[in-house]
Amino acid sequence: MSSNETNVLTVKERILQANQEAAAGLRDYFGLRGTLVTNLISSPGSGKTSLLEATVQRLRDFSVAVLEGDIATERDADRIRALGVDAHQILTGGACHLDARLVQQELGKAGWLGNGRRMDFLFIENVGNLICPTSYDLGEDFKVAVLSVTEGDDKPFKYPAIFSRAVATVITKVDLLPYLQFRVEEVENRILSLNPRARIFHTSAKTGMGMHQWCRFLREAQERKGTMLTASV
Amino acid sequence: MSSNETNVLTVKERILQANQEAAAGLRDYFGLRGTLVTNLISSPGSGKTSLLEATVQRLRDFSVAVLEGDIATERDADRIRALGVDAHQILTGGACHLDARLVQQELGKAGWLGNGRRMDFLFIENVGNLICPTSYDLGEDFKVAVLSVTEGDDKPFKYPAIFSRAVATVITKVDLLPYLQFRVEEVENRILSLNPRARIFHTSAKTGMGMHQWCRFLREAQERKGTMLTASV
Repeated sequence: MSSNETNVLTVKERILQANQEAAAGLRDYFGLRGTLVTNLISSPGSGKTSLLEATVQRLRDFSVAVLEGDIATERDADRIRALGVDAHQILTGGACHLDARLVQQELGKAGWLGNGRRMDFLFIENVGNLICPTSYDLGEDFKVAVLSVTEGDDKPFKYPAIFSRAVATVITKVDLLPYLQFRVEEVENRILSLNPRARIFHTSAKTGMGMHQWCRFLREAQERKGTMLTASV
Repeated sequence: MSSNETNVLTVKERILQANQEAAAGLRDYFGLRGTLVTNLISSPGSGKTSLLEATVQRLRDFSVAVLEGDIATERDADRIRALGVDAHQILTGGACHLDARLVQQELGKAGWLGNGRRMDFLFIENVGNLICPTSYDLGEDFKVAVLSVTEGDDKPFKYPAIFSRAVATVITKVDLLPYLQFRVEEVENRILSLNPRARIFHTSAKTGMGMHQWCRFLREAQERKGTMLTASV
């Protein structure tokens, strides 16, 4: 191993450790506030923002906030704000993932810290990247992998880490299945072999298919978190 | 700036500089061999391998080799080998991009160094990631961005770096355009504003559309490189 490689490892370990500490702080904070935090991870263009648009419209009875991670542009936050939902854009410059300290800083910038308001759900849309965001804990309750059927059915084989760690995988754009060769069963079997407890949802933000099941899953998880909060007080 | 951040910058600079040196060596080598090297970069599932399958079948008169970069599985190399074309899979473990030293090593492992055979084209399919591979020179003649219409027309806005650096963008899966909202003109204008000399191709590996233009572009570039070689001897 060259001295460059040794340095990279040491620096990377230090970065991940510092991230873990910041994430633990965030997790405590969200726990006290009763906020269910979802960290959405996918390739660019898998439809994370479209999924969120369809999701926040079905969670109108709740107080919802969205953090949008991107390298450039406010486009995604604009799309969510257009629905009357609190959204804040995190621009990473060139960085290929979000980290816990960045989330911490941006919660302050967004004016969401200590504002006394309820926050039942916080959705964090990570930078479009199926690899790097997987390693960074953002203090979330769970990571969710988003996989569009147009990306091909080999993705859980080629990018196993995210599908192992994600509590749920949302398969998107299923309205396009008739025009594609995408073996749903093979994908499901692979995801379940990586993580036998994974939940899998089949959705189309365009037609609304599967949104009911996905939102019920979110509501139930939020309720459990709220109940734990009440029990612990 | 924290000491962690300072260290990261220093280490990153050292890594990129070492990569640049290795890439310069590769570029010299490919120049002497008359090999046109294309570094294909895109999101996971944009159709790089399908594009390559359709490409190598149209370059049967040439000697072609393919390096496939992935985190896991030999799937992509298997697909190319099934067409009777030399392909070698680079497995990065967890790494989110290829680098020049890795390419150097794998050329040896593949048995392609000093084998005395012609190599007119080398296609390097990078790890599916629209961000990190952009920074690493692999000694290629040019980077090519691959963008599928199913990813949405906002990608050149949200990921400007790769579209600035790519000599060409291949828009793929255009057979699916009738089922999508993808503003081709907006994408083209954005790409050209980032890089006014960029070449843009519209292709469908499924129907063959646009493959003729794309392969002509490659053949002409290869011919220019071969001519330079002859002129310099």
